[in-house]
Amino acid sequence: MSDSIKRVVLAYSGGLDTSVILKWLQVSYNCEVVTFTADLGQGEELEPARKKAQMMGVPEEHIYIDDLREEFVRDFVFPMMRANARYEGDYLLGTSIARPLISKRLIEIAHETGADAIAHGATGKGNDQVRFELSAYALDPEIKIIAPWREWDLGSRTALIEWAEKHQIPVPKDKRGESPFSTDANLLHTSSEGKVLEDPWEETPDYVYSRTVNPEDAPDTPEYIEIGFEKGDGVSLNGAAMSPATLLTALNELGRKHGIGRLDLVENRFVGMKSRGMYETPGGEIYARAHRGIEQITLDRGAAHLKDELMPKYAELIYNGFWFSPEREMLQAAIDHSQGSVGGTVRLKLYKGMASVVGRKSPNSLYSERHVTFEDDAGAYDQKDAEGFIKLNALRLKLLAKQGR
Amino acid sequence: MSDSIKRVVLAYSGGLDTSVILKWLQVSYNCEVVTFTADLGQGEELEPARKKAQMMGVPEEHIYIDDLREEFVRDFVFPMMRANARYEGDYLLGTSIARPLISKRLIEIAHETGADAIAHGATGKGNDQVRFELSAYALDPEIKIIAPWREWDLGSRTALIEWAEKHQIPVPKDKRGESPFSTDANLLHTSSEGKVLEDPWEETPDYVYSRTVNPEDAPDTPEYIEIGFEKGDGVSLNGAAMSPATLLTALNELGRKHGIGRLDLVENRFVGMKSRGMYETPGGEIYARAHRGIEQITLDRGAAHLKDELMPKYAELIYNGFWFSPEREMLQAAIDHSQGSVGGTVRLKLYKGMASVVGRKSPNSLYSERHVTFEDDAGAYDQKDAEGFIKLNALRLKLLAKQGR
Amino acid sequence: MSDSIKRVVLAYSGGLDTSVILKWLQVSYNCEVVTFTADLGQGEELEPARKKAQMMGVPEEHIYIDDLREEFVRDFVFPMMRANARYEGDYLLGTSIARPLISKRLIEIAHETGADAIAHGATGKGNDQVRFELSAYALDPEIKIIAPWREWDLGSRTALIEWAEKHQIPVPKDKRGESPFSTDANLLHTSSEGKVLEDPWEETPDYVYSRTVNPEDAPDTPEYIEIGFEKGDGVSLNGAAMSPATLLTALNELGRKHGIGRLDLVENRFVGMKSRGMYETPGGEIYARAHRGIEQITLDRGAAHLKDELMPKYAELIYNGFWFSPEREMLQAAIDHSQGSVGGTVRLKLYKGMASVVGRKSPNSLYSERHVTFEDDAGAYDQKDAEGFIKLNALRLKLLAKQGR
Amino acid sequence: MSDSIKRVVLAYSGGLDTSVILKWLQVSYNCEVVTFTADLGQGEELEPARKKAQMMGVPEEHIYIDDLREEFVRDFVFPMMRANARYEGDYLLGTSIARPLISKRLIEIAHETGADAIAHGATGKGNDQVRFELSAYALDPEIKIIAPWREWDLGSRTALIEWAEKHQIPVPKDKRGESPFSTDANLLHTSSEGKVLEDPWEETPDYVYSRTVNPEDAPDTPEYIEIGFEKGDGVSLNGAAMSPATLLTALNELGRKHGIGRLDLVENRFVGMKSRGMYETPGGEIYARAHRGIEQITLDRGAAHLKDELMPKYAELIYNGFWFSPEREMLQAAIDHSQGSVGGTVRLKLYKGMASVVGRKSPNSLYSERHVTFEDDAGAYDQKDAEGFIKLNALRLKLLAKQGR
Repeated sequence: MSDSIKRVVLAYSGGLDTSVILKWLQVSYNCEVVTFTADLGQGEELEPARKKAQMMGVPEEHIYIDDLREEFVRDFVFPMMRANARYEGDYLLGTSIARPLISKRLIEIAHETGADAIAHGATGKGNDQVRFELSAYALDPEIKIIAPWREWDLGSRTALIEWAEKHQIPVPKDKRGESPFSTDANLLHTSSEGKVLEDPWEETPDYVYSRTVNPEDAPDTPEYIEIGFEKGDGVSLNGAAMSPATLLTALNELGRKHGIGRLDLVENRFVGMKSRGMYETPGGEIYARAHRGIEQITLDRGAAHLKDELMPKYAELIYNGFWFSPEREMLQAAIDHSQGSVGGTVRLKLYKGMASVVGRKSPNSLYSERHVTFEDDAGAYDQKDAEGFIKLNALRLKLLAKQGR
Repeated sequence: MSDSIKRVVLAYSGGLDTSVILKWLQVSYNCEVVTFTADLGQGEELEPARKKAQMMGVPEEHIYIDDLREEFVRDFVFPMMRANARYEGDYLLGTSIARPLISKRLIEIAHETGADAIAHGATGKGNDQVRFELSAYALDPEIKIIAPWREWDLGSRTALIEWAEKHQIPVPKDKRGESPFSTDANLLHTSSEGKVLEDPWEETPDYVYSRTVNPEDAPDTPEYIEIGFEKGDGVSLNGAAMSPATLLTALNELGRKHGIGRLDLVENRFVGMKSRGMYETPGGEIYARAHRGIEQITLDRGAAHLKDELMPKYAELIYNGFWFSPEREMLQAAIDHSQGSVGGTVRLKLYKGMASVVGRKSPNSLYSERHVTFEDDAGAYDQKDAEGFIKLNALRLKLLAKQGR
Repeated sequence: MSDSIKRVVLAYSGGLDTSVILKWLQVSYNCEVVTFTADLGQGEELEPARKKAQMMGVPEEHIYIDDLREEFVRDFVFPMMRANARYEGDYLLGTSIARPLISKRLIEIAHETGADAIAHGATGKGNDQVRFELSAYALDPEIKIIAPWREWDLGSRTALIEWAEKHQIPVPKDKRGESPFSTDANLLHTSSEGKVLEDPWEETPDYVYSRTVNPEDAPDTPEYIEIGFEKGDGVSLNGAAMSPATLLTALNELGRKHGIGRLDLVENRFVGMKSRGMYETPGGEIYARAHRGIEQITLDRGAAHLKDELMPKYAELIYNGFWFSPEREMLQAAIDHSQGSVGGTVRLKLYKGMASVVGRKSPNSLYSERHVTFEDDAGAYDQKDAEGFIKLNALRLKLLAKQGR
Repeated sequence: MSDSIKRVVLAYSGGLDTSVILKWLQVSYNCEVVTFTADLGQGEELEPARKKAQMMGVPEEHIYIDDLREEFVRDFVFPMMRANARYEGDYLLGTSIARPLISKRLIEIAHETGADAIAHGATGKGNDQVRFELSAYALDPEIKIIAPWREWDLGSRTALIEWAEKHQIPVPKDKRGESPFSTDANLLHTSSEGKVLEDPWEETPDYVYSRTVNPEDAPDTPEYIEIGFEKGDGVSLNGAAMSPATLLTALNELGRKHGIGRLDLVENRFVGMKSRGMYETPGGEIYARAHRGIEQITLDRGAAHLKDELMPKYAELIYNGFWFSPEREMLQAAIDHSQGSVGGTVRLKLYKGMASVVGRKSPNSLYSERHVTFEDDAGAYDQKDAEGFIKLNALRLKLLAKQGR
């Protein structure tokens, strides 16, 4: 706390933890706090956050509450989905992709309000601190960053609650006992970690899930939907044009109903440890499968395979917090270049936890029934070409074999 | 047909197509034919193949019928599964991985019987011709290969059946009409292509599936199973030790019952066209998810991410027919090196088409509850370390930002 | 020769081989021939080609002679140099990069003249046929391509010369004996293959080199030069602004004088065999080193390492003839995205075969003397940050070590 | 300094800096110091180090002086050379590759002497601290590490010298003025950084070089040498069998004489800043070129291209200090797998700074003069195969073109 801070922008949810942080910043740094509360589609009322900030003396003009849902989906989720990004084979990066947007707004607000620092409520063990801070430093190299969880001595929940009470911060009744797990939510996903999830052998209890019904309780009849794509991005559902956030919201509702997008994962954090998480990405899972579906008929093999090779690195960059980095932008440029003709319609079947592509069509389709048919192809393809193709592909292998290798 | 062939080993299924080929080789090349019929777990009687070969004059000592199931799973499927290989994001390579083994036996039998050629029944449009022939050339650079579908003028099914009848080859009744689609089967999967599947917008009709029940008809109650792993390979089911083929067979039965492993895909063939396939990989899908599950707690991040980066290339090599190539072997060496401690037990929930990892445990687990806990970690991890970690990761981004970039 | 061809555009050098092809096309296909002769900086007179074409009855309006030097360097060589592309570690792709441009013009001229085919003089063993034809098919999928070397029966030089004489094609005296090797030349490089070079143990004789002095005969005093860059491309030499082709021409002269850019290589052809080539890339070698030099201070590490990882694939694509492919364009998009700030000046020392970067400066430099100094850095860098950085990078390794792994 | 340390093993060169550290450890930690001095071929007398350690009270049995030259070259340099590793296109990793070996011995000695800590003299700004410490933690996760440059307050050279004099540590006369630059040396290379090199626009002054003559002063006559390889490693020079360290020593002498292996580089450090270094790797440069030369004729294309693709990551891992990591070992397994037939002889020309491969031969050569010849190849290669090869490679590009893409 050696640096003198005059004004700090806090990523403020309105919950207990960030309320304690708000007060703690005022008390410890003796500085003004600007609060920033983002609507990323987490599904919570934001006005209570305003009230609480006011109660703690934050002036009205320093309370920022922004609806970022469209920007979030359009400029962050969809570009990432163009890459078919899944971290470690499965995770759709729901938390990772929200952090750079929050940092971007924190820095913008810092510049608007003349603040010299930002603060966030992420712990020192996780990935989110890294994501917040790398993004912030990339956007403003002079910004100061306060991460109270790495600084203060409120090492346990009991200490935190005592401190809250001592400073007249209202503590909701259900927070008095230990929270059974920690969650993050936005329009793309809800994640849960910790507590009952800490033993990776124990099945995630059903009460941890909040965004999807249990597949066993989902409808017994499949539902078919059609998603329209243009230039690699979803633009319609069942024929109705939709904005990015509207589309994802609608897919979330479908996914919730059919129990789609649950994931139980042990993943590798950037800070070096493994953690077990539970993710619900109902609309995202449907969307991701649909995007692959439309690529199947519109994307050339060379482009598709290059994308598949680049994807793990791209996903790792987002997971590790390097959204605002030259290498992520380079990969994005390559990926975006491939998406110009990725348009058409994908038909999916939703049923008890599964979203399966069952049909795809496109004016840009590269699928040629005439070439592939087992029937007479009217000369589209000369089977004799295959012999030369195979022989030249085999040549180096033959030369090796002649060496007895 | 300029080269004179004395004796040819034919990959012989006993079905109509390869029976026509058998006769056609005898007639057109005036050569001896050795038949090789492999039991790869395709689930068909093989003795009828012996009968038919005998009927067409193949002497007993030139009729090879081999049970290759254990070799197939142990030396081909499992090594591939160690890599978590999926072609174009989804396909578990069930056909691709069987071809090199068949070629290997064809060449061995050619050497045993003094044959100078091999023959196969793959068409000139597909991948299998490439896989058969690249493998064969890699194992014997002097071998001659006859691919009748690229040579003869039996361009339609009608022509084929007429030719068969003219040459006294029995034509099963159900072959007289056009087969609705083409299939391949082995212990890992069944694939179907062509005919009713040729329009990628049309949903695959249920009658195409033969290895799995429709998820809608699967049990309404989930089933939990446990798969044991050692050194990256499955070794037990629900505590009972099993050989590779036995384990995969048992998983196939579980997958069939719960409707697991159906895949509808438009893929990019090596020969340059897109094709639409339907795959059923019931046991393979369960196994693949279980393998990722055990890796989650036993594989280091560096190893895991390197594997994820190498996987697309590895899968492409197998798909394209380069199993017997230095680069596939190099990648295998890297992958195998990573699997020494990949052992333990994975618990999965099987339910209506889904196989979900719900628990994993291992004596080699790298998951450290002590490090990851939100509670007091008794000094396992110093949160202050994160600040330096972030600052040095940010340094280059800050230097960029100072340049206004 | 089954297809009937009405008019064909021939890539025509004016030399003996393509003159024979010109006549052979007229005779064998009974079709009109349009000739296209490109000035790519190969350093030969092009008017003789016009004369010869006229002599063989090509009407004036069907003789195309184009100066493509600026387009070649600006749109092909420089974009490739942005990637630091070297095939198999060394080869600067001088022939590979010229082929797509020639194909592009062949197709344009085919469209202008209503021709239905193109023809080229590349043999059936090399890479150039692949490069010409892949580019042509990518630009016009309906074009017919005639590759006489794969069709005719003039299998030896003697046969070719006899055929030429029989058809009144003048044969230069020095062509009567076997040419000692085969060459290709353009503004970027000269390559030689075959004959005296065919034994890879024998040193390339000095008379094979035509573009550079022997380093032993180069000046005994080093020469210093400065190349200016903007957005990843060279724009000036020793302070004088220059167009792309002018700059490369000037560097070629410098390289020639100092014996720079000789390369003796055994490389792997796309068609599956190894070949031994000798390359002279005097200006290109200097330019390539200068480009790396300016990137050293202006390119971020993340961008630089991503470029290094992508380079081998990018170089392979160009070598194999896939310039006009989605995946090459995707990689180019990524690479170009990185070059916006790659500007400044590089100082090189040229001396007896070597071009060494000895200095680089840039208004966009990311090199920070203040950070790197061993002296007091006035707080730019806190050495204590390194401890946390190392500890978190080590965490997963420690967890492994605790497992005895 | 909170942890109590009983005994620490110090990487001790005998120079001023590590002598100060030795004393400082005794004074500040009040602990026993074990010294470890490695002969890695740096070309300095090591007995003075023993004397100094004795003078500072280190008992004889706690003074370790080891000749590690053979182990260094055999187990570290050669395996790395098998990968053709160059960091950022140029740097042969001479310092990076020595650090893990030093750490390995530090840990072994710690275990032998019952020490609970190790110490090194690397600063907090560089890569070496990372390399030392990652290696040490990977080999002993419980080891404590003391990095005095990150701890003490001797922030300037003057302070260091004052402290030395105050504690009766002899200060060589030439150390009183500021050292003009910082160096590291071993059998593979000598590096220099800092001071006169800190401006990357200024040419490195000739007095910085210590291992090579200026190319301008090198012999005016080229020298030809032959290096023999087996299984990817050098085994002989001009026909005389040599151990790894003997071979590298001999090549160093040749490189020195001909001015080979000088490199002026601005590189990206792992800690996030750029630094300018000067490297001399005389024998290593020759060896690296020779290794590529022998691979040219003995390594299959698939293996060679995979190696080229993996190399940048492999080099980065070594540069960043991850020698003892699962992913480096995986890559090594892949690389080593490729080297079994990499044997034969390479002929090089050494002349004024350049080492050029001019010939290569091998009993395992994959180069086939019969295939590549422009003359009659007696049916080794059927040029007509190329047409099918090209047509199927073009098919997807044609399908794209038909879409107007």
